Amino acid sequence: MSTTKPVHAGMDQFAVAGGELLVGTIPLSRLAQRVGSTPFYAYDRALLTQRVRHVRACMPPDLRLHYSIKANPMPALVQHMAGLVDGLDVASAGELATALDTGFNPAHISFAGPGKTDAELTRAIAAGVSLNVESEGEIERAARIADRIGIAPRVVVRVNPDFELKGSGMRMGGGAKPFGIDAERVPDCLRRLQALGMAAQGLHIFSGSQSLKAEAIAESHTRSVELALRLADAAQQTLPGLYLGAGFGIPYFAGEQRLDLAPIGDNLADCLRRFDAALPGTRVSVESGRYLVGEAGVYVARVIDRKVSRGQVFLVTDGGLHHHLAASGNFGQVIRKNYPAAVGNRMGGEDRENVSVVGPLCTPLDVLAERMDLVRAEVGDLVVVFQSGAYGLSASPTAFLGHPAPAEVLV
Amino acid sequence: MSTTKPVHAGMDQFAVAGGELLVGTIPLSRLAQRVGSTPFYAYDRALLTQRVRHVRACMPPDLRLHYSIKANPMPALVQHMAGLVDGLDVASAGELATALDTGFNPAHISFAGPGKTDAELTRAIAAGVSLNVESEGEIERAARIADRIGIAPRVVVRVNPDFELKGSGMRMGGGAKPFGIDAERVPDCLRRLQALGMAAQGLHIFSGSQSLKAEAIAESHTRSVELALRLADAAQQTLPGLYLGAGFGIPYFAGEQRLDLAPIGDNLADCLRRFDAALPGTRVSVESGRYLVGEAGVYVARVIDRKVSRGQVFLVTDGGLHHHLAASGNFGQVIRKNYPAAVGNRMGGEDRENVSVVGPLCTPLDVLAERMDLVRAEVGDLVVVFQSGAYGLSASPTAFLGHPAPAEVLV
Repeated sequence: MSTTKPVHAGMDQFAVAGGELLVGTIPLSRLAQRVGSTPFYAYDRALLTQRVRHVRACMPPDLRLHYSIKANPMPALVQHMAGLVDGLDVASAGELATALDTGFNPAHISFAGPGKTDAELTRAIAAGVSLNVESEGEIERAARIADRIGIAPRVVVRVNPDFELKGSGMRMGGGAKPFGIDAERVPDCLRRLQALGMAAQGLHIFSGSQSLKAEAIAESHTRSVELALRLADAAQQTLPGLYLGAGFGIPYFAGEQRLDLAPIGDNLADCLRRFDAALPGTRVSVESGRYLVGEAGVYVARVIDRKVSRGQVFLVTDGGLHHHLAASGNFGQVIRKNYPAAVGNRMGGEDRENVSVVGPLCTPLDVLAERMDLVRAEVGDLVVVFQSGAYGLSASPTAFLGHPAPAEVLV
Repeated sequence: MSTTKPVHAGMDQFAVAGGELLVGTIPLSRLAQRVGSTPFYAYDRALLTQRVRHVRACMPPDLRLHYSIKANPMPALVQHMAGLVDGLDVASAGELATALDTGFNPAHISFAGPGKTDAELTRAIAAGVSLNVESEGEIERAARIADRIGIAPRVVVRVNPDFELKGSGMRMGGGAKPFGIDAERVPDCLRRLQALGMAAQGLHIFSGSQSLKAEAIAESHTRSVELALRLADAAQQTLPGLYLGAGFGIPYFAGEQRLDLAPIGDNLADCLRRFDAALPGTRVSVESGRYLVGEAGVYVARVIDRKVSRGQVFLVTDGGLHHHLAASGNFGQVIRKNYPAAVGNRMGGEDRENVSVVGPLCTPLDVLAERMDLVRAEVGDLVVVFQSGAYGLSASPTAFLGHPAPAEVLV
């Protein structure tokens, strides 16, 4: 059987030596010995650093770059990212604690998310982080809490824009949405905040994520900037900060290409000039999660059984959807498609075959690769799922069927 | 806006008093106070007992009923089920430990699942439970381990049948599958087991689950029994046990009806007679997970914010997909559909509206009910998602975005 036409983008961010994939310069078999158990997630520290440098090189120098912890909240990785970026974005009190533990300046941590409880609002205000308010009710609750505990909150207004990022993997703006305050209501909210004595420190506009189309991303940035200027003007206020969702995607599936950041950076430079002309002094930030960490991580599972059922070869591994729901095709995907994968201790092998890689769960959903062309693997070999640095372990039902949780290492 | 035509099956397994849903006779608001935090899962002990009694009443008296722990592995619930059923099925060493902790007779515990590690095989053999072997490779590994530790394993052969349960939510037989040994290879495997001195204690045939079609289920039982007889005959062996997947489903979505077990029980009585004529002494068991526990559980989340975005009302709750992935439509569903839901502390209220119930996560996937007709709810009210007793908490990515895990209570 031959492979189908579209192929996965090359996973050449990882080097290969002696037939072994290298993660943080360590051959995969040796890394597995060091970890001591399979399956595991491994994130490459050098690749994280390189990726941030690459983004900065493509973006205007005065643009600020934030890391969205939700993409990968492993504390060691967040600590590493904290040394590279200008801001950290958190989506819960749990992530807030992780961010604060890095020693990062709270003024550059922002907390967004609908449905924040009073306890979460209290913790955010007490910590002195930016509170991205998501509704008019939340503004009033934050004001009451701030008054009660006697700390002025740093409020940023999250806007539900009247457009969305086209071709986005996750659309989060436009139409009726639970996120943010409808753009048309924002000027009133900005005035209300001023009246409450907690004038907005900025606007947060997130129109979508996981896009591989540079033009669509650039257009969403331009429209976000125009919207921010319009809202500031309508409210007759300056804006210390503007926080934009980056929207940068990474290639997961066959046929997808890596995003070219250069035109996006050029467009953002234009945006910054326009902003500077209209509202000098506003700091513009983009926030990115998946793009910064997604390509730096792999999920590694060991082949426990190799079996042939009615002509189809199955590699049954000790890893599966309980650790990597997204790779199994069960996290927001309509049609299951394969993530890029390889036999990490037999890189470049000649003897290839068409196989399905499955996990140990008693459910047909537990598939890591379906009828994929891989080097022939035997029991004991290590199957690697690439593009697993974001929305991997933390987005998976680890307790499902009672198997142990995987290890997670930053190397 | 009026409701759409198909409606959810009535959730009248739970009583209502004074406008409150009762779980284990406790009004929901009081239960929430007793639990001390939201969100939480609550399972009704009396409903579990009733459901087992109902199944037994519909089935032939000598049929044995097993509970598949994977549907809900909460230890207190498993302990309760252990007092009601004839066998427990586990799918991992973790579930095995839960089953053994109930004090259940290991001879009536069975361990199925592809990709069992040597450590898992060792634990199963040492515990004296039935080992449902899933491949020829696993047979050889089990034999080596049994030899090494000097304990004869109780082996059951899991068969990949040459048919599948039609209209099943989860098809697990027919064609090339990672589960079990292809039917056509089973006679050789039975002989191989005999040669290894560990003759099979039975066959395990699982053709699918979550079916709401009594005829299709009855047909799959008949075909399973015929297949078992054929395989035993081909191998010239008796079969102490036959373990069948029940396949019984529960209604989740609007338009679905509860299954009528009576014709299934009548058909199983026929099957048992045929089996008894051909292979007297074989004990036949059916295993069920979801059907036994799914309808006895609710997921309860509190309304944190009520907001209107461009004409659509959103109830933002403290619960969501991180606790209940299946209700969010992201666990094996191609098209998202609403689970039955209600405002549990305003049952029977007159003032209804069309709302979307969402969670606190920054993702458009975090939806518990989309544009559903519910009683008008305010901040502080308790939204209940029904049919949440199976594949709820344990099948959810609880660490996603760093919110606290929900409580779980059996009342």
